[in-house]
Amino acid sequence: MAHYDFASDNTAPAAPEAMDAVVAANTGFTSGYGTDPITARAADLVREMLDADAEVRFVASGTAANAISVAALARPFEAVLAHEHAHICTDETGAPGLFGHGVGLIGLPGASGKIDPAALEAALAQPDVSYRQSAAALSVTNATEYGTVYDAESLRRLISSVKAKGYGVHLDGARLANAAAAGFDLKAISRLGVDLLVVGGTKAGMPPTEAVVIFDRDLARRFDARLKQSGQLPSKGRFYAAPFIGMLGSGAFVRHAAHANAMARRLADLTPFPIRHPVEANAVFVEMDDERLARLHAAGWFVYRFLDGSVRFMCSWATTPEAVDQLGETLRQVA
Amino acid sequence: MAHYDFASDNTAPAAPEAMDAVVAANTGFTSGYGTDPITARAADLVREMLDADAEVRFVASGTAANAISVAALARPFEAVLAHEHAHICTDETGAPGLFGHGVGLIGLPGASGKIDPAALEAALAQPDVSYRQSAAALSVTNATEYGTVYDAESLRRLISSVKAKGYGVHLDGARLANAAAAGFDLKAISRLGVDLLVVGGTKAGMPPTEAVVIFDRDLARRFDARLKQSGQLPSKGRFYAAPFIGMLGSGAFVRHAAHANAMARRLADLTPFPIRHPVEANAVFVEMDDERLARLHAAGWFVYRFLDGSVRFMCSWATTPEAVDQLGETLRQVA
Amino acid sequence: MAHYDFASDNTAPAAPEAMDAVVAANTGFTSGYGTDPITARAADLVREMLDADAEVRFVASGTAANAISVAALARPFEAVLAHEHAHICTDETGAPGLFGHGVGLIGLPGASGKIDPAALEAALAQPDVSYRQSAAALSVTNATEYGTVYDAESLRRLISSVKAKGYGVHLDGARLANAAAAGFDLKAISRLGVDLLVVGGTKAGMPPTEAVVIFDRDLARRFDARLKQSGQLPSKGRFYAAPFIGMLGSGAFVRHAAHANAMARRLADLTPFPIRHPVEANAVFVEMDDERLARLHAAGWFVYRFLDGSVRFMCSWATTPEAVDQLGETLRQVA
Amino acid sequence: MAHYDFASDNTAPAAPEAMDAVVAANTGFTSGYGTDPITARAADLVREMLDADAEVRFVASGTAANAISVAALARPFEAVLAHEHAHICTDETGAPGLFGHGVGLIGLPGASGKIDPAALEAALAQPDVSYRQSAAALSVTNATEYGTVYDAESLRRLISSVKAKGYGVHLDGARLANAAAAGFDLKAISRLGVDLLVVGGTKAGMPPTEAVVIFDRDLARRFDARLKQSGQLPSKGRFYAAPFIGMLGSGAFVRHAAHANAMARRLADLTPFPIRHPVEANAVFVEMDDERLARLHAAGWFVYRFLDGSVRFMCSWATTPEAVDQLGETLRQVA
Repeated sequence: MAHYDFASDNTAPAAPEAMDAVVAANTGFTSGYGTDPITARAADLVREMLDADAEVRFVASGTAANAISVAALARPFEAVLAHEHAHICTDETGAPGLFGHGVGLIGLPGASGKIDPAALEAALAQPDVSYRQSAAALSVTNATEYGTVYDAESLRRLISSVKAKGYGVHLDGARLANAAAAGFDLKAISRLGVDLLVVGGTKAGMPPTEAVVIFDRDLARRFDARLKQSGQLPSKGRFYAAPFIGMLGSGAFVRHAAHANAMARRLADLTPFPIRHPVEANAVFVEMDDERLARLHAAGWFVYRFLDGSVRFMCSWATTPEAVDQLGETLRQVA
Repeated sequence: MAHYDFASDNTAPAAPEAMDAVVAANTGFTSGYGTDPITARAADLVREMLDADAEVRFVASGTAANAISVAALARPFEAVLAHEHAHICTDETGAPGLFGHGVGLIGLPGASGKIDPAALEAALAQPDVSYRQSAAALSVTNATEYGTVYDAESLRRLISSVKAKGYGVHLDGARLANAAAAGFDLKAISRLGVDLLVVGGTKAGMPPTEAVVIFDRDLARRFDARLKQSGQLPSKGRFYAAPFIGMLGSGAFVRHAAHANAMARRLADLTPFPIRHPVEANAVFVEMDDERLARLHAAGWFVYRFLDGSVRFMCSWATTPEAVDQLGETLRQVA
Repeated sequence: MAHYDFASDNTAPAAPEAMDAVVAANTGFTSGYGTDPITARAADLVREMLDADAEVRFVASGTAANAISVAALARPFEAVLAHEHAHICTDETGAPGLFGHGVGLIGLPGASGKIDPAALEAALAQPDVSYRQSAAALSVTNATEYGTVYDAESLRRLISSVKAKGYGVHLDGARLANAAAAGFDLKAISRLGVDLLVVGGTKAGMPPTEAVVIFDRDLARRFDARLKQSGQLPSKGRFYAAPFIGMLGSGAFVRHAAHANAMARRLADLTPFPIRHPVEANAVFVEMDDERLARLHAAGWFVYRFLDGSVRFMCSWATTPEAVDQLGETLRQVA
Repeated sequence: MAHYDFASDNTAPAAPEAMDAVVAANTGFTSGYGTDPITARAADLVREMLDADAEVRFVASGTAANAISVAALARPFEAVLAHEHAHICTDETGAPGLFGHGVGLIGLPGASGKIDPAALEAALAQPDVSYRQSAAALSVTNATEYGTVYDAESLRRLISSVKAKGYGVHLDGARLANAAAAGFDLKAISRLGVDLLVVGGTKAGMPPTEAVVIFDRDLARRFDARLKQSGQLPSKGRFYAAPFIGMLGSGAFVRHAAHANAMARRLADLTPFPIRHPVEANAVFVEMDDERLARLHAAGWFVYRFLDGSVRFMCSWATTPEAVDQLGETLRQVA
């Protein structure tokens, strides 16, 4: 029987704090499309967590949330700068192009999923020519695809270059909880110049839900219509808001992420395979050849070979020390 | 305090059968993106209900499900025929145009939400000219926006004209449960020539979820990529599949809809206002002037004036006879 | 042998002033993509004609020019208000939806192709709801599809309502020359609040070319990239600019249109069929049943039955009095 | 004064054979939208040149023609394989994404603009996963961006791999005349498995016009509607068809291209700078540092540094031996 514990952080069930909140919210009649009091309460908690007076929406899909965000920041004949291995570039089946109507993506290099500042500067210095999609926005991810974490100062430097050009900034926070647990200051985001933030609920241990945070109020105009057209304005909004109440209200959002990060650290300490990237959040990437990966799969542990050729192990709120130790033992056997 | 009981059938909480199934499914690690056993089981139940060997996907949004379906049947320079008051034409903020990249909609008239067969014939007889978006598909809704229900024979007649032209057919079943409870034979759908069906979970009393049923296997090629790009391939698929297990496995899907239909019938018998459309499913549309509607709102009952100028009352699985009677009493007072 | 003289104003050849200018421009090497001196000279002439300091681009297609313009003024989840029989609504195969990524069109009624001001007010007064594509711009056509002409004051009234909401305005001037010849003051346009104007070259007697005039400089940012992505930034720009030099420099632009208008007037005086719309520009619409239209076709004169059921006769710079008289004679015979 | 002779092959005027044909076609009234006899005659000549029974359309823009073609072969959640420096990937401002609604492009490496067969095989061997845009078509360019020419056998090998997967093939023939003049057999194209071909008129010495050749008749269904929606179904079709009559009927199409190729060969023989790519068509790419390029610009010769870092010189039908010799002299001076 296959173990999906480490295949992704979305293979876990939802955390009890989230599920309990959903069950609690599932009572009585409410108004629809995000106008209900549960949604209002959840939005307050997100604003409080971020220490920001921003608009907040709750949607079903991170892919859509990211794509809608970049479409709000760049026009079809413009492009979005992002790490070349960012989720929007590599794992979303061209969703930015669909929701952005052909908007371009300019992939930037950088070690361990972090954008190389010099590469960003070079991209920003490109002349504005009519035969290319010129940059109009930056999309940055924290924690990154490779389990590393930007600190606020690093993000500030990247973002300030972008803002100096008058461009927009999207922060993909699919694993923002893990970044926070690793020390990233959530209250700094609103002061960094981020225009649109997606706070990941799903990978943080909730049922499917993501919070879209609109810091730039100009962008909020008719945003609900944008969401509705995109299939992301849920009629029963409470099902997407309630998990945030359960997780943010209780502190479980960061607490569970801290556990996931600790499990990744524990696994990193156990694995006999060379570790490819700094283990700062809830992922461990190791160097492993096909033969050994096949043996690991044969032993029942399902994990993916990633874009950089390394093999990825993800931990979540539900990862147990026992599972980590069991996996560690198997890794030693297949090594 | 406002009562939203009759504002829509999506103001109700999720039914216990659906919620219990979600809670039951929320255990252990599973593979993602619809490859998990819960999704497989739910798909089996949908196929069984429809007596059809079809592909089934579970998605978050009916708006997206419909838009993706019409985009699969008509190209951007073609059009979809639909009742002029169909949800895709009037209430989805142009989602078909977004997911269909500019695909056209041709609104057809017809009493009480049912497409007038003569109007359909006339539309199908239009010459194929390059300066118009010619029809490539029909979208039909059952139960209709006006709470009426097509029987299988009526649908067969509409659809056969469309199929004779080689065009595709989408069935918007946001309220398919209510149609079934009203006598529509679900097992007939696969034999009617429907290519893509959306089975509404949300309005049937589930947390947000809709089943997309792909009868035409050619359309299934790379459908997951289509869904993923559209933000409708949920990583935690079990949350969208489990409610169908709870509702279909127990018979609650149709049973709850029968209750909703009965509540609409009860309300229709009580209302002193002229009833505009046949009450065949879970909606009652009455003629009511602005003054009386304002009084009703003042009495705390929130309902909408609809596209045809009548006022709509929706019932759901959660509508109680007591609430109907209480509303009936208020209606008599404001009349 | 079929006569296409009156089928449209695009069945005529190009006027000698336009062709001579093309031939004259076809010498030597020039820079591409609209950076050449011929394009610069033509743009100057357009600005002079309009008495406006605007950006000017020359493109191949009126359909694309209109669609790109509305896409610049309204986002995909918004809509453009236009006469329900405007070219963008009825004859461009959904081009606004393609270039506008699903942008909506809201058709407004109004006699003889002119938007009814009350209908516009009503549309502008619609509440901004998330489930509909709310208006963001007005598209108005002068001369209209039905050969009538707005005067500057009428347009000012329509536009001022739109501008009061902060919305954009597009003027489809496919037959602007005919409007000018009918007395419409071209120099008024820049003061009416028009943001984007398309000056028709093709129907005015040029080889395929249209001038896009960008009054709002904010809209000009990266407009060339928008055009390039849309296939409307011609590498050999002089071929689209030169005809405007030939026609505007010589006064032929309005002079030829005045001739076309006079020919329509002459035909109107000759036709025995009831005239449906005021003959103010270069079109005559008459009431004619199918039998008589068939006879006209059999006599070799090809014309179209239009959206309002009347039969349309278009005149152009190349229409001769003799052809009008000959047609008039035939009309009397088939009447 | 700047010389644009070598900046591109679209800086030249139109050849007399093309212009004369336009002038000759500019007489009398004709039906519109490509239904006129001039368009029919030009289409016959294209079919004759290709020895193929295909549908032919004449459009204004190569960018649009290419983008519309790939949109006809790949859906938005799929991708098109092309050389990483192909025009559609690098110089069309994301037009494929606009007309293809987010369709992906997968850039393949290969020396001197020719796709490396092994890289194509590797791309075709990629598993079909839902989170990536999987390949659905190949776009190949002949002559290539780097002035090299595929022979029929090389193309056959690339294409047969693609056809074996059931995918479509687009041939960008912006410089097909130059390929033909270099020995590429135009009559072989229809037998190679190409589905859609764009025959470049503009760069071959015509006023703006491109022929779209539809070999696969299934793709031709409603293609005019596709073109119309895209702003590429010209009302005055004769202006786009006539140049092909003038050039193909007289043999000037290939004859002028042979001259352009010969001029490139002459320049290659003269230049003191290292030549980067085989000179097989009408381009010469040389290695030149910024200082020397600046001197060349200062001497009045405008040319571009290209994607691979080399400097490009393009020749056309209008390039004179004298200009080549004069440029050669300047090159020796700045070297």
